[in-house]
Amino acid sequence: LSLQPEEIVEQFLNIRRRSEALCAGLAPEDYVVQPTADVSPPKWHLGHTSWFFEELLLVKYQNDYKRYDASFAAVLNSYYKSAGSHWLQSERGHLSRPTVAQIYEYRAHIDRHVAKLLSQNDLHADLVTILEIGLHHEQQHQELLLMDIKVILAANPCMPAYSKSALDCAKPPSIEWSDFDEGVAQVGHDSPAFSFDNERPRHKSYLTHFSVCNGLVSNGEYLEFVNDGGYQKSRHWLSMGWDWHNEHAVKYPLYWFYKDGQWFEFTLHGAAPLDLQAPLCHVSYFEANAYANWRGCRLPTEQELELFLIAETESKNAVGEEVLHPGNSNAPHGQLWCWTQSQYSPYPGYQPYDGMLEEYNGKFMCNQFVLRGGCFATPKGHYRHSYRNFFQPHQRWMFSGIRLARDLS
Amino acid sequence: LSLQPEEIVEQFLNIRRRSEALCAGLAPEDYVVQPTADVSPPKWHLGHTSWFFEELLLVKYQNDYKRYDASFAAVLNSYYKSAGSHWLQSERGHLSRPTVAQIYEYRAHIDRHVAKLLSQNDLHADLVTILEIGLHHEQQHQELLLMDIKVILAANPCMPAYSKSALDCAKPPSIEWSDFDEGVAQVGHDSPAFSFDNERPRHKSYLTHFSVCNGLVSNGEYLEFVNDGGYQKSRHWLSMGWDWHNEHAVKYPLYWFYKDGQWFEFTLHGAAPLDLQAPLCHVSYFEANAYANWRGCRLPTEQELELFLIAETESKNAVGEEVLHPGNSNAPHGQLWCWTQSQYSPYPGYQPYDGMLEEYNGKFMCNQFVLRGGCFATPKGHYRHSYRNFFQPHQRWMFSGIRLARDLS
Amino acid sequence: LSLQPEEIVEQFLNIRRRSEALCAGLAPEDYVVQPTADVSPPKWHLGHTSWFFEELLLVKYQNDYKRYDASFAAVLNSYYKSAGSHWLQSERGHLSRPTVAQIYEYRAHIDRHVAKLLSQNDLHADLVTILEIGLHHEQQHQELLLMDIKVILAANPCMPAYSKSALDCAKPPSIEWSDFDEGVAQVGHDSPAFSFDNERPRHKSYLTHFSVCNGLVSNGEYLEFVNDGGYQKSRHWLSMGWDWHNEHAVKYPLYWFYKDGQWFEFTLHGAAPLDLQAPLCHVSYFEANAYANWRGCRLPTEQELELFLIAETESKNAVGEEVLHPGNSNAPHGQLWCWTQSQYSPYPGYQPYDGMLEEYNGKFMCNQFVLRGGCFATPKGHYRHSYRNFFQPHQRWMFSGIRLARDLS
Amino acid sequence: LSLQPEEIVEQFLNIRRRSEALCAGLAPEDYVVQPTADVSPPKWHLGHTSWFFEELLLVKYQNDYKRYDASFAAVLNSYYKSAGSHWLQSERGHLSRPTVAQIYEYRAHIDRHVAKLLSQNDLHADLVTILEIGLHHEQQHQELLLMDIKVILAANPCMPAYSKSALDCAKPPSIEWSDFDEGVAQVGHDSPAFSFDNERPRHKSYLTHFSVCNGLVSNGEYLEFVNDGGYQKSRHWLSMGWDWHNEHAVKYPLYWFYKDGQWFEFTLHGAAPLDLQAPLCHVSYFEANAYANWRGCRLPTEQELELFLIAETESKNAVGEEVLHPGNSNAPHGQLWCWTQSQYSPYPGYQPYDGMLEEYNGKFMCNQFVLRGGCFATPKGHYRHSYRNFFQPHQRWMFSGIRLARDLS
Repeated sequence: LSLQPEEIVEQFLNIRRRSEALCAGLAPEDYVVQPTADVSPPKWHLGHTSWFFEELLLVKYQNDYKRYDASFAAVLNSYYKSAGSHWLQSERGHLSRPTVAQIYEYRAHIDRHVAKLLSQNDLHADLVTILEIGLHHEQQHQELLLMDIKVILAANPCMPAYSKSALDCAKPPSIEWSDFDEGVAQVGHDSPAFSFDNERPRHKSYLTHFSVCNGLVSNGEYLEFVNDGGYQKSRHWLSMGWDWHNEHAVKYPLYWFYKDGQWFEFTLHGAAPLDLQAPLCHVSYFEANAYANWRGCRLPTEQELELFLIAETESKNAVGEEVLHPGNSNAPHGQLWCWTQSQYSPYPGYQPYDGMLEEYNGKFMCNQFVLRGGCFATPKGHYRHSYRNFFQPHQRWMFSGIRLARDLS
Repeated sequence: LSLQPEEIVEQFLNIRRRSEALCAGLAPEDYVVQPTADVSPPKWHLGHTSWFFEELLLVKYQNDYKRYDASFAAVLNSYYKSAGSHWLQSERGHLSRPTVAQIYEYRAHIDRHVAKLLSQNDLHADLVTILEIGLHHEQQHQELLLMDIKVILAANPCMPAYSKSALDCAKPPSIEWSDFDEGVAQVGHDSPAFSFDNERPRHKSYLTHFSVCNGLVSNGEYLEFVNDGGYQKSRHWLSMGWDWHNEHAVKYPLYWFYKDGQWFEFTLHGAAPLDLQAPLCHVSYFEANAYANWRGCRLPTEQELELFLIAETESKNAVGEEVLHPGNSNAPHGQLWCWTQSQYSPYPGYQPYDGMLEEYNGKFMCNQFVLRGGCFATPKGHYRHSYRNFFQPHQRWMFSGIRLARDLS
Repeated sequence: LSLQPEEIVEQFLNIRRRSEALCAGLAPEDYVVQPTADVSPPKWHLGHTSWFFEELLLVKYQNDYKRYDASFAAVLNSYYKSAGSHWLQSERGHLSRPTVAQIYEYRAHIDRHVAKLLSQNDLHADLVTILEIGLHHEQQHQELLLMDIKVILAANPCMPAYSKSALDCAKPPSIEWSDFDEGVAQVGHDSPAFSFDNERPRHKSYLTHFSVCNGLVSNGEYLEFVNDGGYQKSRHWLSMGWDWHNEHAVKYPLYWFYKDGQWFEFTLHGAAPLDLQAPLCHVSYFEANAYANWRGCRLPTEQELELFLIAETESKNAVGEEVLHPGNSNAPHGQLWCWTQSQYSPYPGYQPYDGMLEEYNGKFMCNQFVLRGGCFATPKGHYRHSYRNFFQPHQRWMFSGIRLARDLS
Repeated sequence: LSLQPEEIVEQFLNIRRRSEALCAGLAPEDYVVQPTADVSPPKWHLGHTSWFFEELLLVKYQNDYKRYDASFAAVLNSYYKSAGSHWLQSERGHLSRPTVAQIYEYRAHIDRHVAKLLSQNDLHADLVTILEIGLHHEQQHQELLLMDIKVILAANPCMPAYSKSALDCAKPPSIEWSDFDEGVAQVGHDSPAFSFDNERPRHKSYLTHFSVCNGLVSNGEYLEFVNDGGYQKSRHWLSMGWDWHNEHAVKYPLYWFYKDGQWFEFTLHGAAPLDLQAPLCHVSYFEANAYANWRGCRLPTEQELELFLIAETESKNAVGEEVLHPGNSNAPHGQLWCWTQSQYSPYPGYQPYDGMLEEYNGKFMCNQFVLRGGCFATPKGHYRHSYRNFFQPHQRWMFSGIRLARDLS
């Protein structure tokens, strides 16, 4: 961040404004509800990201700063035990207050104070570090906002569209494969540019001879699995996945529905006939793993996918335009987060952040699988190929897809 | 209802407007949330009561009526299986749509059409009957609105007040008792005026020699029970009540809280120091029964309470002013619904309503206890002494209090 | 109990031995398991009834008595809070100790000591009262033993029979009805002979003109309800019953099963083709109520059924032989406990037992329905027409049937 | 297995007899109960391991073999979907049949038939492979038997001892550390001797410079963590672990209890004062991870622990005697399974068994952590250093301990 103060302020405000812009089309009611425990109300996201700056920047670095409202912390703290007790995540939708208007006032207050703080010359390096984390944190919540808004809108029988624009047809995905040699590879982040603590340190890993498919699995390919009775064939499934899909009567990806002899999909552009060429989205690890087994392939490890993504980027132009659905982008990758078979663990020599941010990543390294590659909803400038996203194996409300791998012996 | 059409229309609109007036001070967000499964979002109440008129009056009696929005029924039907499938009650707070504004438009639409329908001369007697039921139904939901809004506001850590006006101190309740002779008594409704089906037929019941206390149990009296360790003495409790209060860590009435050495109570006027003279409110049947046992008394039966309420009304002026908290009324009774020891059962010869309304009362006659007497939140003109309110024994978010009885042998 | 000491001892030992005789054919493993929370392992019943005598008779009336094993009370106390903490009911099947052999040793020890205590002349009246309660308590558990053993055996895929003897065919039930006049009737127990506290005091009740069917509902009659889609027609069901049967996928009575185009029933004589003429057994209140509604009838109140049972006894010979399945008895009644529409409440002027036995009945007067009439499994000498049995409306592992009633206007 | 037929038969029978010997001291009731869902009744273990041989050896390789009892498969199949539907694991304790005696008869039947089958010359290689798997499977269940019997006995308030012999005092564990160099290491099994499919193929892995403690964490060391308030300090805990221990009120290892000012531990030798020098046993991954964090160390990876165990074995005499509690062995390792930070994943190039045994390992590679090193209860001849045991992070009824590691940079 070797920027002038005014550039820093501008960058800060641009990112902050984008969060609000994402919510611009919502009805006030859409900001409030929480149809499932995983989802947070949009007003909570807007408030929480502001609390993050207040707690970590303003309270620490602005002299005599007084918290905007002492009662907000308990509600807007997500899970930082060191920052005091916090509201139960699954009950965020129980709260009617602070109202949406009050949250926007809070945001404006935080923006004014942070902008003022950043306008000073000679910013302390620690402050800049926290600022960067805060901005990447805000961008993570921008992707979460789209994920959560999709659940919120879909929960209504009338299934309102988030975007009024039309949905383009996707081009068929590549069916070519890229091969990689066996040997010691380097993975993880080591440039001075920003990364989260969990991407470091860069380290050596021994990889075998493997191949990764250049294209994501499409809806049409996955429909073959569905039509072949893939959800009824236990041998393809993990034991937990088998129990999960039976208990919850899961028979196809989230947002798919069958009506009058035709498959549809709810998208941020509203309900639409299922585009068989578009990348498959919203599957759990259980489904991704079962599909790969059924195809006689496997999911890649996170190390394999990191190498693949780097190699692919070098050969192609990675710049896409901002879209709201996979397949509506001409980016060569980054359309969907791809499940890997790697459970989320610390890298050798992992050092978590200090202080409250110690809780940012490390404490979640249990019963989660890593996803790699970014997606259409990942804000530009927020993504790196060393980025480790992670979710529990049954979760599927994020923009998750499948990229197949196989061993070359 | 021997009224002129214009009077009928006026009465209809007055009652309808009162529902909206009760919500006038809410923030949009307050209309949407559902902190507990028992509570419904206020926008649901406003929509459901309109659906009731649409489904039972307009669809049936207005020629060529088309439903305002075909997708509303599934969401706004409460529990009428004969009217088609309905949204799960515990998930009403998952819905952001229809929005509050859309619900108000829907109400205006229904009001216009019903008013037009009622403006005709020679209204069919069945139509008038349904209209009356619909208006009493609306008034039941007005009381529910206040109950539910109280939960919704209290769920927020900032505990906003519903009313900005100050709360008056209560006068000490009467400690005198009224005695009744043994013998056959008549209970239930039989006048041509309105009643629900569950209040009929009027019938004979044999009552023993008993006495009922003229005053409701006060907060101060109940605090003696709390301070005497009443919640830790199993012998006063029903078996289910003992398990219930232990499992949920219930140690005092709903809305009480203890802070800095003092007892407070959340009220519709905001948090306030506990008024020891005011009637105790928001206790479950389990607590009411345990308290009565601890006092060496018992709860009255519903027949006993009906006789008591009639006798008391004859001796006093029953007209109170509209208030938002018990003890803030000069009405001799009607301050709180009082738990009876009577489980909710059909009267001998009970005949449920016809058609969809068959589901109005009879199907709930199981595992509920009857409460009698009305409360400060019961709309004027809606109440009769034969009125049978009913709740499950653990519920306490309604305006429930205790009136003691005892045997005279 | 105006008996000689030796007669008292003999009666005590006879009743105690019958409990053991009921278990004589069990495998040791059958004594231990608890397939559902409602069921207790047979070894627990044998131990608990012994603890009852130890705690209430020996500890109190035998000088210097020391408890057989100080660790038994926590395990064998059912629910008497005043007797100290007790093992969770739903986890009785977690215990492998005390073993069956240890329980039988305990029983023998208790029997020797009680017999010795009873051999004295001039027994204290209080002691005799406790003894009588203890013996009726033991007999209640004899019926529970048969109920619970049936569940335990049925839980095994091999469905072993309790009795090796063959099951007789039933005679068709009577389809005549008995009419009763309106007026004040006396119900409840008042003779000096034994009764439980909940049957007293005898008191007046006002009954309307009603009729009760002389015969119990048969399997064939209930099958008509099943075949008519009775379980899919919400209008016949209580709201809680509708939710219950859908949640638990209940589609016919407990122990029925359909195989190779034929209905079967598991009985204590093993699995057998469903006898259409035999009385229907093992239905919940929800099912009984739905069936009565579907037939255009209703369930009787407990007062009505008490009058009916007394009248019927006077006109017929009530003595039956001991059997293990309804319909295999020539007794005019008593084949099955019949659900009444009366929720279990205290009689006017009800006085519970003193001391620990205060917890025997009164604390369960909530969310239970009364059943009347005894059943084939009720020990001889244990039953009176004022006997109030009670269960929760969803329970159906007891020997419960349906007797219809209707209003005569 | 280059053995003569009679040697093979002898080995088979020896292993089979040891399972029965482990149960020799149980009461019949101890064979039946299932106090927690993870535990299986001992009679189920004895039956299941026999079913395994029947299904995989006799049905396939013995001509005209007929299953001993067609109804056993549904009950004794653990989780092999390809072998048909199976009884719910959590309800194994609901079954009183087959009885213990019937299970022993079944075992004898299977033993006779397998012995006869093995007595033939020229055994098919596939048969020998299945036999080996079956014997190692039986040995896995021998360890499970001890784990489960411990839970079963401990569930009884009288806490009976499994072994009547006295418990020896442990020697203090080593506090020295072994260092390992950075580089590519080989892990996994590749000799022709037996291993499970999940230990193969042997492959290269890149390890950093690390150190492992030679001694296991002792009770005394862990008590320091408890006494320092380790269970109340969120920063040491995984997020899921923090929620888990709060929800279940976990405040110390399984089987510890505090009485009269002193710590005790339930062991297979009965309750005993906590031996502070003995290795800590029965902790979850959550606790192991929190302890390591609190000590400023970390848990080893499974690769690190495999290298450590091999190196240690080369330097010391690994032969221990059979014991029933950690610390009662003079073996240098193998006292307890040690938690690793490695989530259970397939090795590169992993190939599961064919047929029904495809379900043996692979389908559990999700949300489990690997434990390494064997324990005092692991049968001799069953263990290899490549052995990968695995459990869910909250489980702790197995013989699990902690061995610390740290980075050397």
